[in-house]
Amino acid sequence: MESLTSSYKKLMEKVKNVIVFQSAVSVVHWDMETMMPPKAIQLRSQQLSMLSRIGHKMMTDPEIGKLLEEILRHPEYDKLDIIQKRNVYLIKKEYDEQTKLPEELVAAIAKQRAITTDVWKKAKAAKDFSMFKPELEKMVDLEKKAAEILMEVKQTKTPYDALIDIFEPKMTAETIAKVFEELKEGLVTLIKKCETAPRQPDVSILKRRVPIEVQRKIAKEIARFIEYDIESKKAGGRIDETEHPFTTGYYDDVRITTHYYEDNYTSSIFSVLHEGGHAMYEQNLKREWMFQPVGTACSSGFHESQSRFVENIVGRSREFWIYFLPKLKELTGNILADVDLDRFVHAVNQVKPSKIRVEADEVTYCLHIIIRFNLERELFTGKLTVGELPQTWNQSYKEYLGIDIENDSEGVMQDTHWASGLYGYFPSYALGNIYSGQILAAMEKDLPNWRNRIAEGSFHDVRQWLAENVHSYGNLYDPADLIRKITGTELSVKPYLNYLNKKYSELYGF
Amino acid sequence: MESLTSSYKKLMEKVKNVIVFQSAVSVVHWDMETMMPPKAIQLRSQQLSMLSRIGHKMMTDPEIGKLLEEILRHPEYDKLDIIQKRNVYLIKKEYDEQTKLPEELVAAIAKQRAITTDVWKKAKAAKDFSMFKPELEKMVDLEKKAAEILMEVKQTKTPYDALIDIFEPKMTAETIAKVFEELKEGLVTLIKKCETAPRQPDVSILKRRVPIEVQRKIAKEIARFIEYDIESKKAGGRIDETEHPFTTGYYDDVRITTHYYEDNYTSSIFSVLHEGGHAMYEQNLKREWMFQPVGTACSSGFHESQSRFVENIVGRSREFWIYFLPKLKELTGNILADVDLDRFVHAVNQVKPSKIRVEADEVTYCLHIIIRFNLERELFTGKLTVGELPQTWNQSYKEYLGIDIENDSEGVMQDTHWASGLYGYFPSYALGNIYSGQILAAMEKDLPNWRNRIAEGSFHDVRQWLAENVHSYGNLYDPADLIRKITGTELSVKPYLNYLNKKYSELYGF
Repeated sequence: MESLTSSYKKLMEKVKNVIVFQSAVSVVHWDMETMMPPKAIQLRSQQLSMLSRIGHKMMTDPEIGKLLEEILRHPEYDKLDIIQKRNVYLIKKEYDEQTKLPEELVAAIAKQRAITTDVWKKAKAAKDFSMFKPELEKMVDLEKKAAEILMEVKQTKTPYDALIDIFEPKMTAETIAKVFEELKEGLVTLIKKCETAPRQPDVSILKRRVPIEVQRKIAKEIARFIEYDIESKKAGGRIDETEHPFTTGYYDDVRITTHYYEDNYTSSIFSVLHEGGHAMYEQNLKREWMFQPVGTACSSGFHESQSRFVENIVGRSREFWIYFLPKLKELTGNILADVDLDRFVHAVNQVKPSKIRVEADEVTYCLHIIIRFNLERELFTGKLTVGELPQTWNQSYKEYLGIDIENDSEGVMQDTHWASGLYGYFPSYALGNIYSGQILAAMEKDLPNWRNRIAEGSFHDVRQWLAENVHSYGNLYDPADLIRKITGTELSVKPYLNYLNKKYSELYGF
Repeated sequence: MESLTSSYKKLMEKVKNVIVFQSAVSVVHWDMETMMPPKAIQLRSQQLSMLSRIGHKMMTDPEIGKLLEEILRHPEYDKLDIIQKRNVYLIKKEYDEQTKLPEELVAAIAKQRAITTDVWKKAKAAKDFSMFKPELEKMVDLEKKAAEILMEVKQTKTPYDALIDIFEPKMTAETIAKVFEELKEGLVTLIKKCETAPRQPDVSILKRRVPIEVQRKIAKEIARFIEYDIESKKAGGRIDETEHPFTTGYYDDVRITTHYYEDNYTSSIFSVLHEGGHAMYEQNLKREWMFQPVGTACSSGFHESQSRFVENIVGRSREFWIYFLPKLKELTGNILADVDLDRFVHAVNQVKPSKIRVEADEVTYCLHIIIRFNLERELFTGKLTVGELPQTWNQSYKEYLGIDIENDSEGVMQDTHWASGLYGYFPSYALGNIYSGQILAAMEKDLPNWRNRIAEGSFHDVRQWLAENVHSYGNLYDPADLIRKITGTELSVKPYLNYLNKKYSELYGF
């Protein structure tokens, strides 16, 4: 029998290869979004599908299965430390998922994703859901098949839970439904208070035109503030421009993108803060865990908690603007000369129900997510058909946000997720906000003065605290365990609602 | 027995995968040179070594060997058309080379390349050849071993010929020595005439400072002229900035780089023309040959013939500047207002022996190459030791160019090639010039008015002619056959010398 150490070492060497390979693939993806000459799109999709097949083959190498068996059945298995056991667990999970899905199904899904995404773009432009419907039905059917297989592998209660588990391990729709219900109640009440408050923001100041060149300089200042290095000779990051901002990369090469709108200068400010929060998480993972499964982020929800923390809890705080508004005025010349702090902070924190998720404010945002979660869940339990989606969508928007949806392009077809086969992902966004509230409450115990430090222009203490208490745990725990580790409590909506209620009662004066 | 068609199809499918994969790897390489955050260098070298191992494994897949056997021994082999046969030939050549070199030797070479390159940088900075010598010796020894194996595989007369064959298939040192001797005689005579001519250029006008921003606009104009599309919605190219300009890519994604020097504005102009010449070759390859070995350039020398054609024969012609000087004046404001056409054209065609190859003018350039070729050849026949390189180098520079080399950093250590294990490559540069002269002579028969078209600002006819008569042949022929196909004659120095003599006698007035 092979020694345990030797099998573990061999396994980790195999997996290191997969991780190095995938980190290279992410460069090719990034290039497609940022740099690639447009003519190359077809060549690129051939390259990516080839790379994806190679990656799949590497991860489903039977030798990995054999080594996993050897380790898990080894009489001395318990001698592995907690980190080694976690690595083995994460590798087994990934290996099982990738080996148990039949190749034909994986290929059919990949193909259908491309088709549905393409049709979605056209249907959205034509504001015609009926064009989208037949392909979306095929997409959902295929995803259901995959979810049923994954349910077996992951031993979840429902197929939809198996999909959620991809993004938020061990989380269930049942738990989500419970916390989302509480969240909804809190948000709806808060929104009403804001809407009826006598003090209302003047958002016209956010429409003043700021040249793109100036916005690029502002973005560099924001990067400097959050200590995201894009300028030094040891820089590990970049900021580039794409239609939809995103973050990608690994350890020493973590890149973010943003989008500059001349008539909406705060859009790029908040997207750099948001993506910078994602980047900070990746960059703060433990160096010694590089090339190990444990050296990744905990979950999509946790990732989102970090981006929303930096964007909203820090970036939309009064204290941040005490520091940054004078800088912004300096950089924009005389464009904002007449704007004072209170007026500005209220404007960037306007609460106003709207149709489009990605444009929603901090308070109404989660309602968009809750609507999507409810629909997804019913789609996978069979309570709802694809054909019924638009009507249910519109009813939900009326009920939750008091909004009339006029056409499906600003309704059920607004997001790319369902077209591109992402089911079970939406809840992460709201879970991220909930986590961020809990993390804030924990941080305030250790750093009662954190807001003063932000007002002085230093993000350093907050960043350090997050690095030590969130990022450095990497993927050592599942989300439920990690939030307990950080905060001492279970998943809870209260801290987030407390944070929102306090902030918005001060802003709106109720 | 498998049908020939089926075996051929399978083989081409396998090779297509390799080509798609390698085209993705080139994106990762490009990113390293242009975009990568500096901190990522170590991660990137791990990624690239992993990708290189995967690529090697794909190309040496025994299944490829089996299919090649099946096809080559098939009784109906002769039914394959010329293109299919060429594909099989090129695949066999690549497969044999990659399978016959022992993996340990390939790994040892890769490792030594990294070490020698690193030491070279330090030794160059310290102007100390003795630091470089021991590692260069190891490098040369390893390359000799590889060359000896390749000599067996390729059935060349000498090990050095086997290395030349990598870049210039079927070319031999014997042939090169013969044409280089004739070239040398011609160039030395021409240089003397230029040096003693009464009419001498005023190169001070090339030192006037042009802001980088303006140079970027000039580069875009140059790209427009050579029809290298970087701006339209169907663009297949890009211009980025690196210390050393280069071209990389495949069919619909071919990218060039340049370097802008504020006090040397023509440097980027000629580098964009040069790299644009390389790019044009790649972009004009036959569409139906995409993903086939025949759908690549013929050789390094032929590639260089296209870049030098655009840079020198077109870009340093009087006619090009009839068109472009007014544009340049417009773009640079009043910086060049006092400069007339004759003065400018003579300045960009100054002939002056110098120490550094990459800064050499059109006439002296090949002498730098001939010196390197002679040294390489003697190194591989054992007539010269690594320790004797500096002295022989310096003597050659005195003899060929009348130049005193003061230290080895501006002498034998100026280029990266030998440090990075590139032997047999240098001759390509001069062969490229020789080919370009022959190609020019052939083109002038079909397009006697080509110079007028350039003066009118249109490169289109020349580009079309090159596409039809050079690029569209791809890798269907070895260089000796291709030059015969294009020009009807064997490799010959005369057309190039004629071109130079005519041009420089007019410029210098002798």
